Amino acid sequence: MNCSYSPLTTALKRMKRSGSVSRPAVGKSAASIYSVARSKKQQKKDARKAEKAEKAAQRQQQRQTAAAAAEEGPFAANYGDVPVEDVQSKAVSGRSWTKVGDLDEGAAGRAVLVRGAAQAIRPVSKKMAFVVLRQSMSTVQCVLVASADASVSMQMVKFATALSKESIVDVEGVVSLPKEPLKATTQQVEIQLRKIYCVNRATPTLPINLEDAARSEAEFEKAEQVGEKLVRVGQDTRLNYRAIDPRTPSNQAVFRIQCQVGNKFGEYLLSKDFVGIHTPKLIAGSSEGGAAVFKLLYNGQPACLAQSPQLYKQMAICGGFERVFEVGPVFRAENSNTHRHLCEFVGLDAEMEIKEHYFEVCDIIDGLFVSIFKHLTTNCKKELETINGQYPFEPLKYLEKTLKLTYEEGIQMLKEAGTEIEPMGDLNTEAEKKLGRLVREKYGTDFFHFVPLSCGCTSVLHHAML
Amino acid sequence: MNCSYSPLTTALKRMKRSGSVSRPAVGKSAASIYSVARSKKQQKKDARKAEKAEKAAQRQQQRQTAAAAAEEGPFAANYGDVPVEDVQSKAVSGRSWTKVGDLDEGAAGRAVLVRGAAQAIRPVSKKMAFVVLRQSMSTVQCVLVASADASVSMQMVKFATALSKESIVDVEGVVSLPKEPLKATTQQVEIQLRKIYCVNRATPTLPINLEDAARSEAEFEKAEQVGEKLVRVGQDTRLNYRAIDPRTPSNQAVFRIQCQVGNKFGEYLLSKDFVGIHTPKLIAGSSEGGAAVFKLLYNGQPACLAQSPQLYKQMAICGGFERVFEVGPVFRAENSNTHRHLCEFVGLDAEMEIKEHYFEVCDIIDGLFVSIFKHLTTNCKKELETINGQYPFEPLKYLEKTLKLTYEEGIQMLKEAGTEIEPMGDLNTEAEKKLGRLVREKYGTDFFHFVPLSCGCTSVLHHAML
Repeated sequence: MNCSYSPLTTALKRMKRSGSVSRPAVGKSAASIYSVARSKKQQKKDARKAEKAEKAAQRQQQRQTAAAAAEEGPFAANYGDVPVEDVQSKAVSGRSWTKVGDLDEGAAGRAVLVRGAAQAIRPVSKKMAFVVLRQSMSTVQCVLVASADASVSMQMVKFATALSKESIVDVEGVVSLPKEPLKATTQQVEIQLRKIYCVNRATPTLPINLEDAARSEAEFEKAEQVGEKLVRVGQDTRLNYRAIDPRTPSNQAVFRIQCQVGNKFGEYLLSKDFVGIHTPKLIAGSSEGGAAVFKLLYNGQPACLAQSPQLYKQMAICGGFERVFEVGPVFRAENSNTHRHLCEFVGLDAEMEIKEHYFEVCDIIDGLFVSIFKHLTTNCKKELETINGQYPFEPLKYLEKTLKLTYEEGIQMLKEAGTEIEPMGDLNTEAEKKLGRLVREKYGTDFFHFVPLSCGCTSVLHHAML
Repeated sequence: MNCSYSPLTTALKRMKRSGSVSRPAVGKSAASIYSVARSKKQQKKDARKAEKAEKAAQRQQQRQTAAAAAEEGPFAANYGDVPVEDVQSKAVSGRSWTKVGDLDEGAAGRAVLVRGAAQAIRPVSKKMAFVVLRQSMSTVQCVLVASADASVSMQMVKFATALSKESIVDVEGVVSLPKEPLKATTQQVEIQLRKIYCVNRATPTLPINLEDAARSEAEFEKAEQVGEKLVRVGQDTRLNYRAIDPRTPSNQAVFRIQCQVGNKFGEYLLSKDFVGIHTPKLIAGSSEGGAAVFKLLYNGQPACLAQSPQLYKQMAICGGFERVFEVGPVFRAENSNTHRHLCEFVGLDAEMEIKEHYFEVCDIIDGLFVSIFKHLTTNCKKELETINGQYPFEPLKYLEKTLKLTYEEGIQMLKEAGTEIEPMGDLNTEAEKKLGRLVREKYGTDFFHFVPLSCGCTSVLHHAML
């Protein structure tokens, strides 16, 4: 077991040093967080640029600290940079931290301590400023008003407004209810700040503005209609700064849903007496034949990366496991640029003994998918809404008892809709999509089995939506 | 998503064809089911041998079927080979199957239908035989007595006793309670057989006898004392026939416990707001430096297999995930033959933000391990007992609140026990083991944190037992 960790500061600094991910992943990876390769020249250029920016930021910070010291008021201890010692395992303060996502109306009047990223900083006057703090998908508005009662000085307001966006900030304050609903934050409360400290300053000019990165198409269109031109963050920029892009609420939600899918997959199969296994990825031959295999040397001996756990799953069944599953990477050296070809992806794979009929497998798959759908609908509401905010989608339709559509019926439906298919031929992508739409209209489901009516074949199993 | 399956018959046949695993995995793999490479020559030889044996078995079977047909009695339909059509998805019979592990005293008097592997076949007379059926870690004794009342003929007894060991068998019968406790089976009931069918015959001479493979050292010693010499199944044979060896109860238990450890690892961390992620395994540079990296070409571009998800975990923390974990393969091209060096293993990895002190991580690790220990003790009793039966071990000792042993105290304990350690030096394996024993004696735990007393270092974290 390898349980490792590193303080946030170190990781952030490392990112800042290199300008972005220093050792990027190779190529097309489905479930990867960082998956882009850039030219070394570009990397060096970026690194130099980042270094310059960092030095400028340091100078700026020193100037500010000096200025603050000069003007220091009676509340000087209520703001400033957190001494490095405080985040370096020197002492346990025993303070308790509140999560941004937990800040609801019930917290009103309570004193809280929160650490988050300063997503937005809005100076109103010399005496007043707003700071929006973010944690994962949640944001909260912090209000800073200079007043002796609140122990807040004008220097403190100045300190806050000079912070760079995305800096890591600790705040202390009292939760209050705003007079009007807040539009710019997820949490419907404010924190009236008493103290604000910076744990780690971000580079003043970030390669990605998170507000830009989180915008939906609708927002772009709306702006265009009133003649406003908003900044778009392109795919390349997102991938080049892959440690920043996942901070957008919809990316946070996507990864969380992905995790829940894998988790529910295992949970359901475990409840059906499956055993989770891990099969080798470094093997002596190709798993499925074909040329699409990554080859390498294993101590001088030719070896391949597994294209599938297929053989090992079958051998596990022979080995007496009855039902097995695996969640793990699969490698395919396919040189095709389509949405359906990936060189590395995470496979959710299962294998089971059949007693008599492959419908036994269909039943497990039905139960599995329906349980995943239900779990997401019930437990990932916030995540689904967050994604829908940036990338609108229609809610998934599924039946409690999954529809088994016979091949003949499917072909007939396509025929009636004007699409001719060769009898017993494979459906092409277009026909598949069309059938999906027809089934949704007729049966009210996006998920169904497409099965041969009266044939002993156990390998045809088709889903409209995977 | 890739949900594939194959009927047991196909998988068994494939195994029989090739004599063993046809495309074995490469080298040393910790969590792999099949992880051995054999010479091609040996493989071919084995394949020829297996083919011969199979042909002989087929001839034998044909002779038997012919003989049975000749002598056929009034109960001929109650035994025989299952027609291939019955396991080829032609029809759903709707019959319900009972699991061997569920056969307890409460089932007495009930008619049951069971499918299992014929682990042992013991002819008593022409009129009577015993067949022991196995499913995973459970075995049950089936009794076959020729009598018109039970619709059992002598031909049926003959059919059963002629079955080859490890054949897949369907039986129907009535559960009864034996007069004396059964020693050879896990289930304390018998099935009085009415029907017996063979789904798939195993090769008559198997490379591994499961009773030999499941024996403990104590049994070997006991036999030796009375001058008996029992067959030992060597490691090479086990690895060469990796689809048979996992059928032993202790191997079944090991894989099930391994699955539960990974499962509980994820479950506990999810409950502590961790997000499960999957990081790329095919990357552009080494993860941790050093030469121990597998290199390959990715579309003509140099690439490496990930030695660790380290950088990606840290980047995920920068990306706003706060706490992440991963269960996935790790690759290290280490040319060292020790128990601590593996070329491919499954890493249970976690990364989290620290607010102030690395004790925050210690607390998570404490809770994680204690929850895994508790889960195994409570939910894997049968598995632990099964392993203990073949490989005896002392039960794990752990504390509800994990001991934090300071480095100074540990060194002092070793000193008092006569082992001198260089101050602030690393412990060698021997000293580490000794400290583990001393701590178990003094504090009654096998699991503890070994921490520096007053230093800001966040990377020293030591467990006596991993």
